[in-house]
Amino acid sequence: MALELRLIGIGTGNPDHVTKQAISALQTADVILVPRKGTAKSDLADLRHQICEAVLPENRPALIEFDLPVRDPDKHYLNAVDEWHDAIALVWQDTLDKAEAILGRKPKSAALLIWGDPSLYDSSLRIAARLNPQPVISVIPGITSIQALTAAHKIPVNALGAPFMVTTGRQLRDAGFPEGTNTAIIMLDGECSFTHLHQPDFDIWWGAYLGMDVEIIKSGRLDAVADEIIQMRKDARAQQGWIMDCYLLQKRP
Amino acid sequence: MALELRLIGIGTGNPDHVTKQAISALQTADVILVPRKGTAKSDLADLRHQICEAVLPENRPALIEFDLPVRDPDKHYLNAVDEWHDAIALVWQDTLDKAEAILGRKPKSAALLIWGDPSLYDSSLRIAARLNPQPVISVIPGITSIQALTAAHKIPVNALGAPFMVTTGRQLRDAGFPEGTNTAIIMLDGECSFTHLHQPDFDIWWGAYLGMDVEIIKSGRLDAVADEIIQMRKDARAQQGWIMDCYLLQKRP
Repeated sequence: MALELRLIGIGTGNPDHVTKQAISALQTADVILVPRKGTAKSDLADLRHQICEAVLPENRPALIEFDLPVRDPDKHYLNAVDEWHDAIALVWQDTLDKAEAILGRKPKSAALLIWGDPSLYDSSLRIAARLNPQPVISVIPGITSIQALTAAHKIPVNALGAPFMVTTGRQLRDAGFPEGTNTAIIMLDGECSFTHLHQPDFDIWWGAYLGMDVEIIKSGRLDAVADEIIQMRKDARAQQGWIMDCYLLQKRP
Repeated sequence: MALELRLIGIGTGNPDHVTKQAISALQTADVILVPRKGTAKSDLADLRHQICEAVLPENRPALIEFDLPVRDPDKHYLNAVDEWHDAIALVWQDTLDKAEAILGRKPKSAALLIWGDPSLYDSSLRIAARLNPQPVISVIPGITSIQALTAAHKIPVNALGAPFMVTTGRQLRDAGFPEGTNTAIIMLDGECSFTHLHQPDFDIWWGAYLGMDVEIIKSGRLDAVADEIIQMRKDARAQQGWIMDCYLLQKRP
């Protein structure tokens, strides 16, 4: 019988963002695969452990750790990502074999805790498609950082009946502000790419560590708050050792 | 002291999509305001009651019902919506006054169950901004139909590092497929607006009643499945008395 691989969205670090469905999918899995602490994103791995402890107080399935391979920074982005996904798939397969040795039988189901939602700028589905034999996939949705951002700022993501684009810092730098909408959500932006825009034309709603105790947010006219956001981001990153942030940009009328 | 008004995202009808945060925010509210059954969307009102029963088995706060006003179908869309929001704000205020009479004191906190997430094509924040005196707003994120759609189809919403547009059926009809992206999520589409596209150019992933027991999904080349989706939608609507659906369109390579 094929393994059931559960890709479980856990939200953005607030254990209370976890859904009843996610808790049940974690609780009833044979094993939970967790990236090991001590990587570059060690606090994130740590948070996965904390979330398991918070939402699975007892009778927790076996947690089996694995080391995430590192992406080659010298390669072209898409090639590097492609090879990186191949390498992660091998590590997952290896960890599933290890789980079999630990359990003394083939696991029927394995769970992965996915930051945010498995559908949104996450590659678990693409990595899982590389596994051989191919598992049966289940996807459990989780609160995304977009939702944590708009909840923190108490704003709607869209103007009334209007569209919005979700995109990346890289796209914003390469292609500029998207056409056909006045609203864009920028994800995966390590470089404050909003500095490439004509700042007086935009308002920004920014947030980091969204949903967590250390959440920070800032909003305003982009030309008025850009420098402050850059500084807040730098300070927070130095203090925490890592940062995850995103922001909403809206064209000013 | 100002009332705390909690706008609580409850997902798309699956009680297991509710987060721990949402349950706690409902449980600790003084009152929960629920639209009355018997409106056009009676099954949705009913589902709110069911979700309250499922996630708040005991010691439930008082549920106070209100009648949603009806939107004027003869007016221009934005004007009609604007007046409708005014009318809903008056009904909310009236219901809060009623809550005071029932509790014998001013409620400190009131909760509204919001379909999906309060930020996404939902007007609760705009309606709440009309209340006088202005309450303190809390926003609790919930699983959206976009996430329920991609989870049901087990697909990522974005291609690797690529942007996507979230838009409405009306926009798709009026402005065509969005520029600057190969992926669009279409919401609020009562008219199968994908029929306005050049169908051989697109793949579609469609779903209705997402997350619920009666969930139905269909995917494929748009020219191959469009008629089937139109028929499925019509049949399901006739059977259930209502429908909520959305879909992802992707340009074919």
